[in-house]
Amino acid sequence: MAEPTMPLVQRLAGLLLARRQRLACAESCTGGLIAAACTSLAGSSDWFERGFVTYSNQAKSEMLGVAPDLLEQHGAVSEAVALAMADGAIARSAAEWAVAVTGIAGPGGAVPGKPVGTVWLAIAGGGRPATASLLQLDGDRAEVRAQTVEAALNALCRAIDAGAPAQ
Amino acid sequence: MAEPTMPLVQRLAGLLLARRQRLACAESCTGGLIAAACTSLAGSSDWFERGFVTYSNQAKSEMLGVAPDLLEQHGAVSEAVALAMADGAIARSAAEWAVAVTGIAGPGGAVPGKPVGTVWLAIAGGGRPATASLLQLDGDRAEVRAQTVEAALNALCRAIDAGAPAQ
Repeated sequence: MAEPTMPLVQRLAGLLLARRQRLACAESCTGGLIAAACTSLAGSSDWFERGFVTYSNQAKSEMLGVAPDLLEQHGAVSEAVALAMADGAIARSAAEWAVAVTGIAGPGGAVPGKPVGTVWLAIAGGGRPATASLLQLDGDRAEVRAQTVEAALNALCRAIDAGAPAQ
Repeated sequence: MAEPTMPLVQRLAGLLLARRQRLACAESCTGGLIAAACTSLAGSSDWFERGFVTYSNQAKSEMLGVAPDLLEQHGAVSEAVALAMADGAIARSAAEWAVAVTGIAGPGGAVPGKPVGTVWLAIAGGGRPATASLLQLDGDRAEVRAQTVEAALNALCRAIDAGAPAQ
């Protein structure tokens, strides 16, 4: 994963370092790939604070404080859960920014209305309410996961760039 | 990462599924790569429970209960901290097995007596006290991280195989 995302990770690192801010990741379908991409860059301990790989629903609740009711009502792959994961990562870390992803990487796991490649991505931080976006990705499990990492890094760069100016 | 480690991950999955047991990862220097390798396999939600990417010392204490005194006395890259991370991952997850790694991936971070490539790897589970081993790895940051992932998966397979028999 390190190679294709390295330019994006370098851009993200520059944005965070210039603002003396740090990042936390909350990952379901990517299973640690976003954290792994970030920490592939030497010196990432200056801006990458921690990662939550919340693969089970129990982990989403215990590690990030996602309400079990929310998981039951909306399902783990939903806008509401993605937003709650991002908010939880901010609340339960020392980071100023958080990205959260929850999706169906496949080949199993599809449900009516949520085909393989359905991913919710949320960003929290910058003193604004968390925002979420829906990705509908093509490809196999590895491709869905890789595209999700890239989308997460791009969304973070956009949000941080549009947020507080560099100090 | 997915490709070279896939046979090892498949073996690990088989061992855990046969025992109806689950895994948690606590990662510092690998930054999520072990979790990412595990979850690259479809169906991993049946045996991979959660991952802690504890990059900062604060994250090691808050997420895994590693005592700040231990971090101060022994340093983050130490047998004592690796063991505490593995024990913490068991205590703070629903998994029966945990692997923890803490090391110096480089190129920076070396201290006297702990060159780049120094990695402590600990395994907890199976109703026995956690055990740790010291790796002294060669190569650049990506190579140290990749070798650590492989060593962690191998150590898990050996420990689980030597533990409780399949049900």
